[in-house]
Amino acid sequence: MYKLISEDLGARYGKLKTRHATIETPFFMPIATKGTAKQISPQELEELGSEALIANAFVLHLKPGLDIIRKFKGIHKFMKWNKVVFTDSGGFQILSKSFLHKADDKGVYFKNPFDGSKKFFTPENVIKIEEEIGADVAMALDFVPHYGNDKNYIADCTRITHLWAERCVKAHEDKKQLLFGICQGGTFKDLREKSSKFINDLDFDGVALGGLGIGEGRELMNEAVKLSVKNIDKNKTRYLMGVGSPEDIIDGINLGVDCFDSRFPTMNARHGGIFTNEGKIDITKTVFRDDERPLDENCKCYTCKRFSRAFLHHIYRTYEPIRDRYGGIHNLYFIQQLIKKSRKAIKSNEFKDFRKEFLSSYKVNKNKKTFFTYQ
Amino acid sequence: MYKLISEDLGARYGKLKTRHATIETPFFMPIATKGTAKQISPQELEELGSEALIANAFVLHLKPGLDIIRKFKGIHKFMKWNKVVFTDSGGFQILSKSFLHKADDKGVYFKNPFDGSKKFFTPENVIKIEEEIGADVAMALDFVPHYGNDKNYIADCTRITHLWAERCVKAHEDKKQLLFGICQGGTFKDLREKSSKFINDLDFDGVALGGLGIGEGRELMNEAVKLSVKNIDKNKTRYLMGVGSPEDIIDGINLGVDCFDSRFPTMNARHGGIFTNEGKIDITKTVFRDDERPLDENCKCYTCKRFSRAFLHHIYRTYEPIRDRYGGIHNLYFIQQLIKKSRKAIKSNEFKDFRKEFLSSYKVNKNKKTFFTYQ
Repeated sequence: MYKLISEDLGARYGKLKTRHATIETPFFMPIATKGTAKQISPQELEELGSEALIANAFVLHLKPGLDIIRKFKGIHKFMKWNKVVFTDSGGFQILSKSFLHKADDKGVYFKNPFDGSKKFFTPENVIKIEEEIGADVAMALDFVPHYGNDKNYIADCTRITHLWAERCVKAHEDKKQLLFGICQGGTFKDLREKSSKFINDLDFDGVALGGLGIGEGRELMNEAVKLSVKNIDKNKTRYLMGVGSPEDIIDGINLGVDCFDSRFPTMNARHGGIFTNEGKIDITKTVFRDDERPLDENCKCYTCKRFSRAFLHHIYRTYEPIRDRYGGIHNLYFIQQLIKKSRKAIKSNEFKDFRKEFLSSYKVNKNKKTFFTYQ
Repeated sequence: MYKLISEDLGARYGKLKTRHATIETPFFMPIATKGTAKQISPQELEELGSEALIANAFVLHLKPGLDIIRKFKGIHKFMKWNKVVFTDSGGFQILSKSFLHKADDKGVYFKNPFDGSKKFFTPENVIKIEEEIGADVAMALDFVPHYGNDKNYIADCTRITHLWAERCVKAHEDKKQLLFGICQGGTFKDLREKSSKFINDLDFDGVALGGLGIGEGRELMNEAVKLSVKNIDKNKTRYLMGVGSPEDIIDGINLGVDCFDSRFPTMNARHGGIFTNEGKIDITKTVFRDDERPLDENCKCYTCKRFSRAFLHHIYRTYEPIRDRYGGIHNLYFIQQLIKKSRKAIKSNEFKDFRKEFLSSYKVNKNKKTFFTYQ
């Protein structure tokens, strides 16, 4: 249940009440597809300020399998995370060649990547699985097109997403679990408008914006967000899926988004891309070879409290696998701090200034697209 | 400086004083070749009871390079580890085809694996490098033969090791740094005898047993240890390099060894081999799929306090990289506890019973060799 507490020219501060905990919005969720974040323990996720994470219902029902999760009385006890868990439905895996066999009005035929077998997945299935997993927030099954697909195709994906959304609402029985719908429509204004209205009118606790942050760039994404958000009731959580970078998150908050999730911080860390208040640096560059400073001088994450840029540069250049953890902790902490400061700024009606100041110091490389593609 | 405090039928309890700290013996060192343990942070190493670790002088002088370590005033500040650091000399890398070019009486010609260039490495070089790195304990340069090389070859490696040992002692200037020699001789009784006597008679603070735990098996290794240890002065630390498994460590302690290092605990963890009081289990086996117990019911490591076998089985079977950390923490903790209990048993003259009891419950698979080969 979402409660809007204050607004600052479109940016929102509120609280989302789930059965495990009530969390402040806006918030950001690290990814824990199979029940663990990549290289980062649940304890570390807590310490760096994460209140929620998102797992994947489709993947979890394949492995470890629902019988195991049932035995543990839900995902929280299985993965040892006492805070909020969202589960994505599997719609995003439609983008992946290694998962998708085919999809039609009835549902999705997935390939089981572990053994090659076919799995038929319907909106009703998905909801049942998410209920069994025991997520605090279940996501409806949606049909995600690639960016660049033609309008007819995207319109058809949107039509199917709507059919499935209705069936998800109907199938959902666990009233203690929140259910969010997902709108589609690519970056086509009319489709986005229509889809956000359609999904908003169904009985969902929140509305997610799907199919964004997949290559369309910042401008088109922000336009789609703007168009969608105005059609969503104020008492529903707005969730921009798969976003993302510091600049995209602060723009999303500015447009009234309450919730984000993304691989972006940890994926970047894996390749040496480190967020600082001056912008993203590449710690593998030779200039950091003898730099005694921490990654970011004002940062209080474990990595910055303990290690120098020179040491981190060294372990990146020698491919020590622990680099992913140290870099990931820093980047996730950076995002959690950005969100925390944003909440504070909204509450004191200073968000616009805060955003302006952040964006003026955080250099965005306009030539590089900051999105994640799923292959 | 080593101080023998009590003996229990050959097993020894004592203290090794280094410039950073005084540590109780026997002790076990995790490997931190490039200045970090694989997947395990310095904080975690401390929490699981490590008092010392071993880095590699040859590798560190290549990367990050001595200029960087000098700038940080030594390896401790660079890697952020305030406890004891040993540095191995590079002798062990002679076993590796990717490092060795050739070696003769003068020194070793190494290939730099980072750029393919040749590096000439002498005993004098090594000592200078280890002094610059600022290790608490430097290891002399030795010439390690493979297990299975013929006696003439091993005799020649031993002869060269002795030449180099004399030159290391002569070159060593930093009197606050301890220097350990390394004896060789393979599993040939006469060579081992001769080598341990020769190295013991030089002005070293400790004597290491090199070239063991590389395929000769438990029986031959223990025989070589027994032969060597009796030739080492009681006031010198005895260090069995590259060992190892719980059963080999407890045998080593029984024979009067004070110090161990090995990849064995973390390497095993990487492949699902987990130490428990009943023996090693393979957590990837299907039998653990729904097992709600921790890895070892009496264990107090982070992994056992937080996760079930079923969860760990799941992350091993889905190749989540964090498995290496959770498994490694458990195995290292197991070894540290084994050593801690051994110290206690020696102090109260109960070590023989303790060992017998441990070995009767810890099932050793005799068909599997528990050694590490370097390629």
